[in-house]
Amino acid sequence: MPTPADILWRNARLATMAGDDLGVVERGAVAARGGTIAWVGADADAPDAATIVDCDGRWITPGLIDCHTHLVHAGSRAKEFEARLDGVSYEEIARAGGGILSTVTATRAASEDDLVATALPRLDQLIGEGVTTVEIKSGYGLTLEDELKMLRAARRLGEARGVRVRTTLLAAHAIPPEYRGDAEGYIDLVCNTIIPAAVGLADAVDAFCEGIGFTAEQTDRVLAAAVAHGLPVKLHAEQLSNLSGAALAARHGALSADHLEHLDGPGIAAMAASGTVATLLPGAFYFTREERRPPVQALRDAGVPIAIATDCNPGTSPMASILLAASMGATFFRLTVTECLRGITINAARALGLSGSVGTIEPGKAADLAIWDVTDPAELVYRIAANPLHARVFAGQ
Amino acid sequence: MPTPADILWRNARLATMAGDDLGVVERGAVAARGGTIAWVGADADAPDAATIVDCDGRWITPGLIDCHTHLVHAGSRAKEFEARLDGVSYEEIARAGGGILSTVTATRAASEDDLVATALPRLDQLIGEGVTTVEIKSGYGLTLEDELKMLRAARRLGEARGVRVRTTLLAAHAIPPEYRGDAEGYIDLVCNTIIPAAVGLADAVDAFCEGIGFTAEQTDRVLAAAVAHGLPVKLHAEQLSNLSGAALAARHGALSADHLEHLDGPGIAAMAASGTVATLLPGAFYFTREERRPPVQALRDAGVPIAIATDCNPGTSPMASILLAASMGATFFRLTVTECLRGITINAARALGLSGSVGTIEPGKAADLAIWDVTDPAELVYRIAANPLHARVFAGQ
Ligand SMILES: [Zn+2]
Ligand SMILES: [Zn+2]
Repeated sequence: MPTPADILWRNARLATMAGDDLGVVERGAVAARGGTIAWVGADADAPDAATIVDCDGRWITPGLIDCHTHLVHAGSRAKEFEARLDGVSYEEIARAGGGILSTVTATRAASEDDLVATALPRLDQLIGEGVTTVEIKSGYGLTLEDELKMLRAARRLGEARGVRVRTTLLAAHAIPPEYRGDAEGYIDLVCNTIIPAAVGLADAVDAFCEGIGFTAEQTDRVLAAAVAHGLPVKLHAEQLSNLSGAALAARHGALSADHLEHLDGPGIAAMAASGTVATLLPGAFYFTREERRPPVQALRDAGVPIAIATDCNPGTSPMASILLAASMGATFFRLTVTECLRGITINAARALGLSGSVGTIEPGKAADLAIWDVTDPAELVYRIAANPLHARVFAGQ
Repeated sequence: MPTPADILWRNARLATMAGDDLGVVERGAVAARGGTIAWVGADADAPDAATIVDCDGRWITPGLIDCHTHLVHAGSRAKEFEARLDGVSYEEIARAGGGILSTVTATRAASEDDLVATALPRLDQLIGEGVTTVEIKSGYGLTLEDELKMLRAARRLGEARGVRVRTTLLAAHAIPPEYRGDAEGYIDLVCNTIIPAAVGLADAVDAFCEGIGFTAEQTDRVLAAAVAHGLPVKLHAEQLSNLSGAALAARHGALSADHLEHLDGPGIAAMAASGTVATLLPGAFYFTREERRPPVQALRDAGVPIAIATDCNPGTSPMASILLAASMGATFFRLTVTECLRGITINAARALGLSGSVGTIEPGKAADLAIWDVTDPAELVYRIAANPLHARVFAGQ
């Protein structure tokens, strides 16, 4: 190193996530300069630094990454949850104005300030668990103005806290009430008006390809429009049925296809060929009491990278804990500890197109770190709803 | 009220749990004197008090109660968890010294101070969620000295923090290595030596009645010895198979029978007749990927009170979140919101024989309260791994 580093974390055990496993350095140290990792290696070889932090043998991982959330939304669906447990049918709830449209109504009525204020506690919970990068989707506005309002609120969350926010336009989340019976008309609006207007405000475009969402053909139009505007794409695919959405997304070079309980062999092959990440969302699997599991062994065999995210949203995953998502990934999907921890670091970075800048502890990447009070990284997955975070470092601070 | 109260919480919404449901008082207030609830009623009728706390319309519930934990233990089973996910069989792990006996070995090696120190973070997590009463079992010592050491550590936890601790002797948890092949000999030790020595240090006696634990006959001896020494009993029953443990426990007037996935009709009838609480442990159901659910509808129909607890333990439920236990009770077992909230308050109090002193917000009971940043009590069950606790009151403070 030509000049001393700004800061050095020493006497640590590192799970760098470099390479194909946890990338463990038993007696390690990390140095940063200007918010970037300048050096990683054996503690004995550590360079000098203006500030030296003794980690007392604690484990350091990359800052955690939640690569699929709907953090920005208004309203609560707790009473709907209670009614379902009391035996009220989904149809009755929908007739009474419940379901996703209740969140749309509340989100439209909320100001941008409201959206920021109500999302902050959820963001703070993630930050409190060592999250340094979070993806946030729109998708409860479903008008030009309300979708842009959601994206602006998401961006403001990244200014309000020391966290990297990636925004995703999910205008094709549901058919808005004013377009009932005219899905094609709404897709026209998304492709011709909303996507062009979101350029510069959205980092990616997503859609909900499902029997209760949009058809494969409608989804194809949305993804094509996004690509035409230079925006990378992702897709909610194969959650409740198999519309071959993952293969469709892969044809558009998607960063990720998400959910995937009903993914089939051709979909897996297409994802493997395009380098599309499989983002698994066990919180939604839990909350909706899904019984079908994503094809984890086939994804492994095909070499598809697997990420895990919270899917934090009011309707199907009211959960803002990335560590519990990892626990559920192990318990429900039998992901290994290594897969779970890579799923909330480097593979989540890949799912956001950020694998060059975050997700591992390697020189040149952002100095985003999580320092843990655990005796082994496995404890991060083994413990249920515990938070052993000792300290969090975002961009070197 | 003859004299002013010490303290009054006003401008609150109360879920008192008095009666058969949530016991809601929409514009309510609670007054305490000398650590005891002196008055509960409408805000407009509230008495004077030396200190007045404006709750800004927040919800107040009784302090939460975790009525089944193994909080005191040493060692971690995280590497065993990781190995299982990597495909190592339970038999291989047991041969390598894993399983419950690894926790016994670590707990025997730990000093009483060690046990207190390692349990405190788990207790603090529960306290941070509004828990004011917690049950703590022995059961990893399996010698006279080590069982008493665990019970003393549990009692010390109650002195270290403002929390009500109830201790349970679970010497009949597993056959210790030195009694391998001589379960009867160990049961002799439990009945003739350990139970008598635990009088004054244990508030109840428990056992593990199971194919991999103790037979119904051995369990019967333990429970009879406990009753003979004036100690109430509980039982780990019908978790993995049906040995009619719940009916056996009921014959001894058990406070609770716990787990109960394999409980049958006669067991339910016996519990109903004896007033034995059904304590459900969804954290263990989750972690062990159990598929059989306890017979919730039949328990309801029979009028058996249902409690929910964390079962916090290193082998099958490494979880110290009573709110997540409630979420899992709803999601896995389809308990209603009211059942979940009564399950971690009044019915948990019943499972500890404390329904006369805690578990509801009623005059004469301890002023143990949890004040919540929620718009509805349903949010406490709906949100996954969130902690909306605003303030906690233990014995009026
Ligand atoms: Zn989603
Ligand atoms: Zn237990």
